[in-house]
Amino acid sequence: MKRALVLFSGGLDSTTTLYVARSLGFDPLALIFRYGQRHEVEVERAVALADELRVSYRVQVIDLRSAGGSSLTSDAIDVPTNRSEEEMEGGGVPPTYVPARNTIFLAHALAWAEVEAVDDIFLGVNAIDYSGYPDCRPEYLEAFQALARLACRRSVEDGVEITLHAPLLHKTKAEIVRWGLALGVDYTATWSCYAPQRPRDVAGVPGGERESRELAEGFIACGECDSCLLRKKGFREAGLADPAQYLVD
Amino acid sequence: MKRALVLFSGGLDSTTTLYVARSLGFDPLALIFRYGQRHEVEVERAVALADELRVSYRVQVIDLRSAGGSSLTSDAIDVPTNRSEEEMEGGGVPPTYVPARNTIFLAHALAWAEVEAVDDIFLGVNAIDYSGYPDCRPEYLEAFQALARLACRRSVEDGVEITLHAPLLHKTKAEIVRWGLALGVDYTATWSCYAPQRPRDVAGVPGGERESRELAEGFIACGECDSCLLRKKGFREAGLADPAQYLVD
Repeated sequence: MKRALVLFSGGLDSTTTLYVARSLGFDPLALIFRYGQRHEVEVERAVALADELRVSYRVQVIDLRSAGGSSLTSDAIDVPTNRSEEEMEGGGVPPTYVPARNTIFLAHALAWAEVEAVDDIFLGVNAIDYSGYPDCRPEYLEAFQALARLACRRSVEDGVEITLHAPLLHKTKAEIVRWGLALGVDYTATWSCYAPQRPRDVAGVPGGERESRELAEGFIACGECDSCLLRKKGFREAGLADPAQYLVD
Repeated sequence: MKRALVLFSGGLDSTTTLYVARSLGFDPLALIFRYGQRHEVEVERAVALADELRVSYRVQVIDLRSAGGSSLTSDAIDVPTNRSEEEMEGGGVPPTYVPARNTIFLAHALAWAEVEAVDDIFLGVNAIDYSGYPDCRPEYLEAFQALARLACRRSVEDGVEITLHAPLLHKTKAEIVRWGLALGVDYTATWSCYAPQRPRDVAGVPGGERESRELAEGFIACGECDSCLLRKKGFREAGLADPAQYLVD
């Protein structure tokens, strides 16, 4: 089986993408990023999920807190909540956009592709239900594909063409959920929320930003951030039950 | 004055580039990368040099040791020494090539450009005297330039075009040295060596890989790695004295 790198956050999109890569005959190698994200709990969940799926993985540590500039990497910028679909669609680039994140992720993926001698990179970006991110657009991916052909040792020396695969690019969330379920994804284990909450927050005891794996188990999804809302919408439109637990349904 | 990001290692090329940016009327903001490089001493030197030049700087920490795959990021791969010009030119991509390093550096530069609202990025890549790196070629830079136009919030929202500047791209090392001296660069303070040595290494006491700033002061350049050899060649061909101290002249 040919190996493929899969950019993997353990969320709905990237988990589905991992299953799609497998269904296409690839042996996935998950690349998980610990970048100082507010929802760092996703890293532990992603590792646990990769283990459960018996998928090899690498954790790449990147410091995106120094630059900040996003509600996901700066505590000074709030995660927007309860936005309507109109607000999301018409609101331009949202504050959850992390400056150059996909470029940074893909650049690291190229490094791992070089070292692991892998020619295919899968990522779960999606341009339909959430078009606010500049680095999720088809033209962006085409430009990175052109760069990848020129950037690496293996392309120059061995004529290898590194190929990006974005199978969800033109799918709605509902289509993604249906596709994933058809492939056997258990969405119970996927984590999508940007603003993890611990039930005891409700009683006025705020949870810390960085928690041990043990404490991380206690987090539940907020149910109000864009990512939660889009996930709910996907299940709703697919006519299926979302197995995630939300603080606010 | 318009600000510009300058990718800055404190070496001959990037220091000259910083002076060129200034001569073009930009106020430089140096971006220094601590990426687990074997020659981590360059980080302390770069910071000291930026301070001396009264240039603002940011230090971006990146873990490239996990992926490794280069003699600069893996202790298991030796830095080649005493290669002839023919060996360098004809030897393909050298082991000092760090997988996807320029792509990773430029990706982080885009993030900083977003956060600092800077439109211009300078880098000291050079395709003449050392053409072995795939990510120092003009066609690579053009591809990254095309990507940068699509990758960022500021391009999408404000129509800003982030511009890469590589003023040394088509210069020989001798031309770079002459240009730098004409601009007032003091090359005494620049560090180029990939394999820093401490004089006491000679007596059989190996220096550690990671040193405090105090110990770093004791390092001298090896004089035998490709980077030292190219630097020496530059000064020799320019008919000028190289102020660096080498273990092997």
